Amino acid sequence: MSFTKLDELGHKLEALEHALAILGADEATHMAVGGGEKRADAMASLAGMLHARATAPEIGDWIVSAEDEALNDDQQAALREFGRHYENLTCLPSEFVERQMTARMRSEQLWRDLRGKNDWAGFLPSLENVVSLVREEAAMRADRTGLDPYDAMMEQYDPGNRAADITPVFTELKSFLKAFVPEALAVQEERLAKSPLKPLSGSYPVERQRELGLAMMAAVGFDLTHGSLAVSHHPFCGGVPTDVRITTRYRTSEFLSALMGLLHETGHALYEQNLPAQWAHWPLGRARGMAVHESQSLFVEKQLGRNPAFWVWALPVVEKHLGEEWSMDDILPHVHHVERGLIRVDADEVTYPLHVILRYELEQELVSGRLEVADIPEAWNAKMREYLGLSTIDNFADGPMQDVHWPGGAFGYFPSYTLGAMMAAQQWDALKHVHPSVDEDISRGRFDALNDWRRKEIWSQGSRWSTPELMQRATGEKLAAHHFTDHLRRRYGRA
Amino acid sequence: MSFTKLDELGHKLEALEHALAILGADEATHMAVGGGEKRADAMASLAGMLHARATAPEIGDWIVSAEDEALNDDQQAALREFGRHYENLTCLPSEFVERQMTARMRSEQLWRDLRGKNDWAGFLPSLENVVSLVREEAAMRADRTGLDPYDAMMEQYDPGNRAADITPVFTELKSFLKAFVPEALAVQEERLAKSPLKPLSGSYPVERQRELGLAMMAAVGFDLTHGSLAVSHHPFCGGVPTDVRITTRYRTSEFLSALMGLLHETGHALYEQNLPAQWAHWPLGRARGMAVHESQSLFVEKQLGRNPAFWVWALPVVEKHLGEEWSMDDILPHVHHVERGLIRVDADEVTYPLHVILRYELEQELVSGRLEVADIPEAWNAKMREYLGLSTIDNFADGPMQDVHWPGGAFGYFPSYTLGAMMAAQQWDALKHVHPSVDEDISRGRFDALNDWRRKEIWSQGSRWSTPELMQRATGEKLAAHHFTDHLRRRYGRA
Repeated sequence: MSFTKLDELGHKLEALEHALAILGADEATHMAVGGGEKRADAMASLAGMLHARATAPEIGDWIVSAEDEALNDDQQAALREFGRHYENLTCLPSEFVERQMTARMRSEQLWRDLRGKNDWAGFLPSLENVVSLVREEAAMRADRTGLDPYDAMMEQYDPGNRAADITPVFTELKSFLKAFVPEALAVQEERLAKSPLKPLSGSYPVERQRELGLAMMAAVGFDLTHGSLAVSHHPFCGGVPTDVRITTRYRTSEFLSALMGLLHETGHALYEQNLPAQWAHWPLGRARGMAVHESQSLFVEKQLGRNPAFWVWALPVVEKHLGEEWSMDDILPHVHHVERGLIRVDADEVTYPLHVILRYELEQELVSGRLEVADIPEAWNAKMREYLGLSTIDNFADGPMQDVHWPGGAFGYFPSYTLGAMMAAQQWDALKHVHPSVDEDISRGRFDALNDWRRKEIWSQGSRWSTPELMQRATGEKLAAHHFTDHLRRRYGRA
Repeated sequence: MSFTKLDELGHKLEALEHALAILGADEATHMAVGGGEKRADAMASLAGMLHARATAPEIGDWIVSAEDEALNDDQQAALREFGRHYENLTCLPSEFVERQMTARMRSEQLWRDLRGKNDWAGFLPSLENVVSLVREEAAMRADRTGLDPYDAMMEQYDPGNRAADITPVFTELKSFLKAFVPEALAVQEERLAKSPLKPLSGSYPVERQRELGLAMMAAVGFDLTHGSLAVSHHPFCGGVPTDVRITTRYRTSEFLSALMGLLHETGHALYEQNLPAQWAHWPLGRARGMAVHESQSLFVEKQLGRNPAFWVWALPVVEKHLGEEWSMDDILPHVHHVERGLIRVDADEVTYPLHVILRYELEQELVSGRLEVADIPEAWNAKMREYLGLSTIDNFADGPMQDVHWPGGAFGYFPSYTLGAMMAAQQWDALKHVHPSVDEDISRGRFDALNDWRRKEIWSQGSRWSTPELMQRATGEKLAAHHFTDHLRRRYGRA
């Protein structure tokens, strides 16, 4: 039976993916510094084996002939995702994939070197090469899928996402935020004028911050028997669903940013830990896509972790571990701090979407060829001035050179961040409709009921539905901007 | 060219071996407890892929036809080891290897859980399963190699080891030790009667012991840019030559046993870190075998670490890290302490060989089927009483459940420990012949010259020579027991 062959293949691929996931997490946490070269060789070789096995020509035949087999609902859904993955992996000729991989790696390496030097001119040719290959890639993906080129790029990250649906929502959000950012800043100014910001700085040993982080992770639902916490240069959530590796980095003078980062990664981890175990060796068993994944991390960071109700419960936990006795009035101004800034990863939840929309708009023009790479800095600066009132003239490092996505060729990925934020707000409203007392639960450190809802509606569904279908089923409506804008108004606007 | 195909194959196999080595070390150190089942599945699957690739029928053809190609000395040596490995691996079908890997990993995981509970009955079925598979394996290996089943098992660990050669040597050693253990104990008693043992107990935080251990590791030659130190239930040396993973376990009330264990694993690590890098993707580039490996670990632990000259240098290092000021008269009675005990890994170098000979005798009977797993506790107790005068009745945790080897399916491995001790003593005598001032070097913390000799004679040779050839070339003679018994007499006997 062809489906049986796909099922067996799934186990082989899962083993290689398991190895790559653990080796990748290990590289960033426990590997000896001199082990990098051999590790890179080993991972490249394993990735090659994985690709060769996952793209073997006979798999296409199995997929076609399995369609005529008597399959139950789960198997039919699994077959659909096997097909999607196979098409995704085989729509680019391997000659092209290799050429593109080389270009991306060169561009990423150059970016690492030149960002610190603010050297746009030196970086330009390599980014031009990447963009030229991305245009080729988008054309090939469009040809294969029948989608528009940019949609075909997004399809890799979030099946079902279409610019025609997203652009109106982003336009509405942009228009809202242009007016709302000044309002939120004014509200903040007025509050600070009455009661100045009290610094949370102190001396917080790494071990105590770690214990605090573990306590919070466990409380919000992280299963410490199926995951762990380590330290790495850049925080990430990796590993495998049965052994999720979360990392963070600590500063001993400050605890809040590490803790918020940890809650964010814990959100990713909860999704992974609660994926349907019986489908673990099928593509169907994976998280749906990047936007949904981001909705899960942002849900824990923003809907839970920056919720005043959360801090009713969390302040005594912080006090227990760090020995500091803060009031709600001390902590909330930090948790809800809003600031216009140049750097996306440092942005708060109010200004963050403007960073994403800027990139979303520019990368569509880059893919279509309406914008050339040489003209990015001017276009970037114009939008930063318009959206956030900030200039990036001659400041490439904090402008178009701040992200790894474009040098890495990941066009179509950026919208996921803000789609995730909007989805998280919409999920919150749906949850609150079913559980009106969720804020009270949170203020008592009770996360079971809300996690049960998320497990049922999101986590347990794996890749069963397209991204828009998943949202429709979980929340009863398609993606709508007002859940997010209402959330921002409630938290940051005039009462 | 067929040799080129073998060379390319070597790179693929190295990548899979790298993954298995790191996943194995990770499992014992950083893996979440609930990750075991999926890890076992993934490793079984990867081991199956490795086995399938390493045993492909065309490899046999390449090996045959490469023999007619113009190869340099290194390539000829490499081809010989490719051939040996291929024959060794093709004894067992992939299906069997996967089944055995799963059984071993389950048994090891169960062992980790049940040893602490002294639960032999709960552990028994999984060990019976492992032993049953070992008997199958031994029969298949015997069939292929024409060796006796137990010899065929030992052949994997030490090419050329034969029970017919080892048994008389061990019988002689056993007879020597039965007389010498009482002598060494009497000498110790007389010394203690004059000057009572001063306890080294205190309170030594894990972090300080770890720093002390790292300082000693680095001093004796461990390259901290190509390896690291972690904590695990059972100390081991794993990983890959560019990223060697050493582990130990600590007790805060006592430091010496962890430190000695660490020096032992450091000896293994030095061998791995100094293997010829240019042969890393060939079987030729590996350590020669387990007995030679053990000779390297025991050399560091016994010839160096329990040498009085070592403590002239080491006492101030210990003082620096633990804050304790001890004299040679304080420390040496502990370093040279002899005691009849139940635990092999805690045994001193005088009684240790008796623990090994007990296992060597029992595992031959287990493999042959003359002994059943259910009868191990009784047989174990009988030999412990005869060799060391100790009972293990109803004490499974300190009896047959103390080692990971049998749950791990590593039958034929135990004799390597005592063969290694004998080789280490012989290497020391050869080294001292070339470097008469080696004790003085050690007392000044200078390990370079002695490591240069070991690198040249042992480490850099990889698997170029058979074990007897390697010993002959390094020491000028074949393995002779008197180096070891002389060593024991000098260190523990009547002056």
